[in-house]
Amino acid sequence: MNRKKKNKENTDLHGVRIIPIGGLGQIGMNMTAFEYEDSIIVVDCGMAFPDDDMLGIDCVIPDVTYLVQNSDKVKGIVITHGHEDHIGALPYILKELNVPVYATKLTMGLIEYKLEEHGLTNVVRRKIIKHGQSVNLGCFRVEFIKTTHSIQDSSAFAIYTPAGIIVHTGDFKVDYTPVFGDPIDLQRFAEIGKKGVLALLADSTNAQKPGYTMSESTVGHTFDTIFADNTKRRIIVATFASNVDRVQQIINSAKKFKRKVAIEGRSMVNVVNCAAELGYINIPKTMQIDISEIKNYPPEKVVIITTGSQGEAMAALSRMAAAVHKKVQIVPGDVVILSSNPIPGNEKSVSKVINELSVLGAKVLYQDTHVSGHASAEELKLMYALTKPKFAVPVHGEYRHLMSHAEIAKAMGVDKDNVFILKCGDVLEMNSEAAKIVGTVPSGGVFVDGLGVGDVGNVVLRDRQVLSENGLIAVMLTINRVTGEVIAGPELLTRGFVYVKEADNLMDQAYDVVCEALEEIVRRRISDRVKMKGLIRDALSDFVWKKTKRNPMILPVIMEGDD
Amino acid sequence: MNRKKKNKENTDLHGVRIIPIGGLGQIGMNMTAFEYEDSIIVVDCGMAFPDDDMLGIDCVIPDVTYLVQNSDKVKGIVITHGHEDHIGALPYILKELNVPVYATKLTMGLIEYKLEEHGLTNVVRRKIIKHGQSVNLGCFRVEFIKTTHSIQDSSAFAIYTPAGIIVHTGDFKVDYTPVFGDPIDLQRFAEIGKKGVLALLADSTNAQKPGYTMSESTVGHTFDTIFADNTKRRIIVATFASNVDRVQQIINSAKKFKRKVAIEGRSMVNVVNCAAELGYINIPKTMQIDISEIKNYPPEKVVIITTGSQGEAMAALSRMAAAVHKKVQIVPGDVVILSSNPIPGNEKSVSKVINELSVLGAKVLYQDTHVSGHASAEELKLMYALTKPKFAVPVHGEYRHLMSHAEIAKAMGVDKDNVFILKCGDVLEMNSEAAKIVGTVPSGGVFVDGLGVGDVGNVVLRDRQVLSENGLIAVMLTINRVTGEVIAGPELLTRGFVYVKEADNLMDQAYDVVCEALEEIVRRRISDRVKMKGLIRDALSDFVWKKTKRNPMILPVIMEGDD
Repeated sequence: MNRKKKNKENTDLHGVRIIPIGGLGQIGMNMTAFEYEDSIIVVDCGMAFPDDDMLGIDCVIPDVTYLVQNSDKVKGIVITHGHEDHIGALPYILKELNVPVYATKLTMGLIEYKLEEHGLTNVVRRKIIKHGQSVNLGCFRVEFIKTTHSIQDSSAFAIYTPAGIIVHTGDFKVDYTPVFGDPIDLQRFAEIGKKGVLALLADSTNAQKPGYTMSESTVGHTFDTIFADNTKRRIIVATFASNVDRVQQIINSAKKFKRKVAIEGRSMVNVVNCAAELGYINIPKTMQIDISEIKNYPPEKVVIITTGSQGEAMAALSRMAAAVHKKVQIVPGDVVILSSNPIPGNEKSVSKVINELSVLGAKVLYQDTHVSGHASAEELKLMYALTKPKFAVPVHGEYRHLMSHAEIAKAMGVDKDNVFILKCGDVLEMNSEAAKIVGTVPSGGVFVDGLGVGDVGNVVLRDRQVLSENGLIAVMLTINRVTGEVIAGPELLTRGFVYVKEADNLMDQAYDVVCEALEEIVRRRISDRVKMKGLIRDALSDFVWKKTKRNPMILPVIMEGDD
Repeated sequence: MNRKKKNKENTDLHGVRIIPIGGLGQIGMNMTAFEYEDSIIVVDCGMAFPDDDMLGIDCVIPDVTYLVQNSDKVKGIVITHGHEDHIGALPYILKELNVPVYATKLTMGLIEYKLEEHGLTNVVRRKIIKHGQSVNLGCFRVEFIKTTHSIQDSSAFAIYTPAGIIVHTGDFKVDYTPVFGDPIDLQRFAEIGKKGVLALLADSTNAQKPGYTMSESTVGHTFDTIFADNTKRRIIVATFASNVDRVQQIINSAKKFKRKVAIEGRSMVNVVNCAAELGYINIPKTMQIDISEIKNYPPEKVVIITTGSQGEAMAALSRMAAAVHKKVQIVPGDVVILSSNPIPGNEKSVSKVINELSVLGAKVLYQDTHVSGHASAEELKLMYALTKPKFAVPVHGEYRHLMSHAEIAKAMGVDKDNVFILKCGDVLEMNSEAAKIVGTVPSGGVFVDGLGVGDVGNVVLRDRQVLSENGLIAVMLTINRVTGEVIAGPELLTRGFVYVKEADNLMDQAYDVVCEALEEIVRRRISDRVKMKGLIRDALSDFVWKKTKRNPMILPVIMEGDD
């Protein structure tokens, strides 16, 4: 492994540059740029959901400073598949960087929903590409190769560059028996491998899992068994909206057991509509009913397919579990299937939903009704065996996954000096002779909060952290602009600090502490506002810590009166 | 299952009352009261760690209003074992309810550390009880029975009441080959079962896991294998401080492979000292070195046993991973073993630590180095087969675990009407004829924040939530007490809302909005302070939402000036 970091450019190597803009070492925000002389192309444009310590943040998008600085070079964005962590940042980034977008049909359908929400439908140039087709972008040619993943129409890319062929797998697994369409095009990977592959960028998510990932179609058998075991009960299945094949299999079981299907949850309705319109999902018109019609059918004749399998607070399933859903009341006897694994960080919310559903009398099933969409270790080995790359650049996954992937690459014969674990912003330059990290570009996440993009930074987050832990005490007073005499206040006000009825006495004492500080200010003839505030803050902060062992934010405000 | 809830007392049944004060349907805060006429005894006194939405809260303790109201009846607290969720609330509760505490030797040793921290060592009466011994408390007799769990000296209780014998297992598993001391005393459970058991309160934590939980001693073999595979590297093992047997097994492997042992992390040092002093852990004097001495030994001659296996931000392992630990620097080649499973909710922090350690070059092992301390389904069946209770009351675990436990009880022959899933505060009264829920008592959690117990409630938490998501805007002005004229301000101040440099223009406009509101106040001759504040708050809130789609807390403050 070779991890030399240099901050200044190093130009004794002429080749293609691989620049991960986001998505390395963490989940989400997948975006990689490829640069050769005056051409740049971008693969994927994902968003990440905020970490627990990003208080109030809605989502995180990649920092595209480098691309904006070089916007005349950027020829287009090619998208591997339609998941949020690969397309979610498009509406934000395209506002800064209006370049054409290339994707397969279903992927483009899902992108269009996003563009519409942001009023960008008529602004953004886009083109649907079929598997097997290529698109020329500057000095690059990008070939779309059929892969399999937990969403249909997923692609890998063979990127033909003047320095050699780079294969980017996107998210993939090797599914020989997908629910819809063709299996992954292993022959094409082999053919390209035979031509000679300069570098392989492959999905590391499940690199630590030994063996093979099961085929999506195995879940269908589990559904059939559950439906057969529960012919007298209503069945509710929660899964990822974007897992169209999963939804199809639920519909298939419903058909076998003669149940109507109702779709619930905004994103589920959107995705199912989009997929049905484009021919990626097959649901007979007579089978689908509106969620408001379920009351017209006996429970054992209905399946509800819904969002909320991750325990998301506002999703349909959470609202059913909390008994606040307007159209679905959970009753004893209902069978609820969670067809997904909790994404790391969501375990507690998922537990909460399961417990609430149990309290309402539902039978909750959450084992053996999910398979991963990512390649396990043996599938990665297969990809290396077919493509035989000179260089390996593990992508997609946390750092520990990238590390395990690196071990696999070495075990498959990639020279240990030719395996590169990159960080976001690293610039890896390579040609058929050599590769090295030649510099870095700005990278990292940009916070989106409401309508604001990038206007919440670390200072704001630190303030939110302090406020969230112990609230605040504001101290206000007004002094005469001329004489410096106090003409109003001091007044103390707390929020999120302590239940005030319990703290009458404490706040009285705090008031006295502020008054003493003011006396000291007068005695020492301090007139500098900043010093005054500092003295008040320190005195109050000391007092409060001593009395409560808490550190609320102290906000002294000194106004000047006209009079 | 019988789940009738009544709010008023119902006295046509005379028997013993079982009152869960905390710990049902959630993790932690285990505490159950048993009442018969003028005697009350309490089993365990645990604390819970705060949920994500309990911002700034340090821990949660049970609401003991009912016990305090009946303090003359309370004869004592008996403790099953020394884990935080069974002893952690003692220092807080004993301040309100000074009753004697009974526990086995190691459990009492750990309790004493807590009492010392709170300056209660000389205040609290306490007595060490051996397994097989009983203690008489009012009309109750409590027999301590040897069990096995992930901490030594764990006990179940046979509670002899005038209405019959109640068996409370505490947390337990059936370990035939524990690392230290005797196996669980199954014969005694059988003997008591033969006498006739009125009710069984048993541990539900792993009721959903089929089969048997592995013996603690199996982990020792895994450690030996890892030590044998890594004879040239430093080994660092993180585990729960309270899992004394786990620590002993690490020491055993270190001994076999001739390594010195350093203990790191405050709670690890406390527990190991306590256990070693009381004879529950065996570490040769020559083997143990201080953490500051590790630099004097080659890496392959050292094992560090540390806290932080749950990714807790301030624990020793997290500080090593973040490269801020003063005495331990992680270097490439180090082997770090996480000997624990993430507790639900901690998965993301654990991942973070693993990734950070990987970045520093450590090899992180976290599979097959942990077994649970709780009985799986087949062990629960064994407990039912031995005790053959008339009534079953599942305890310890989330609601879904209690539900699964109830199914096991029924499968083992307990009448379905005799299985009671209680909620905290339910009063279940029973005798040899019948059982029913006859009322409820106050229950729930009390928040501890710094030195404050119970002074943070829902209003404070809601404020902290709002502040954490979008920060605040304070609007201050001073008006003349007599004329009502504005003599200072308005001034606007934000914290945690938006990065102010980005928002100069926005805040200027916000200032104008406030001025307009003030003009309207003058025009409409409004002098009521509450109305004035309301108008300012609404105007500013509307403006900010329209411009930013955010909802900061708006804090209008109107002071009156003396002139």
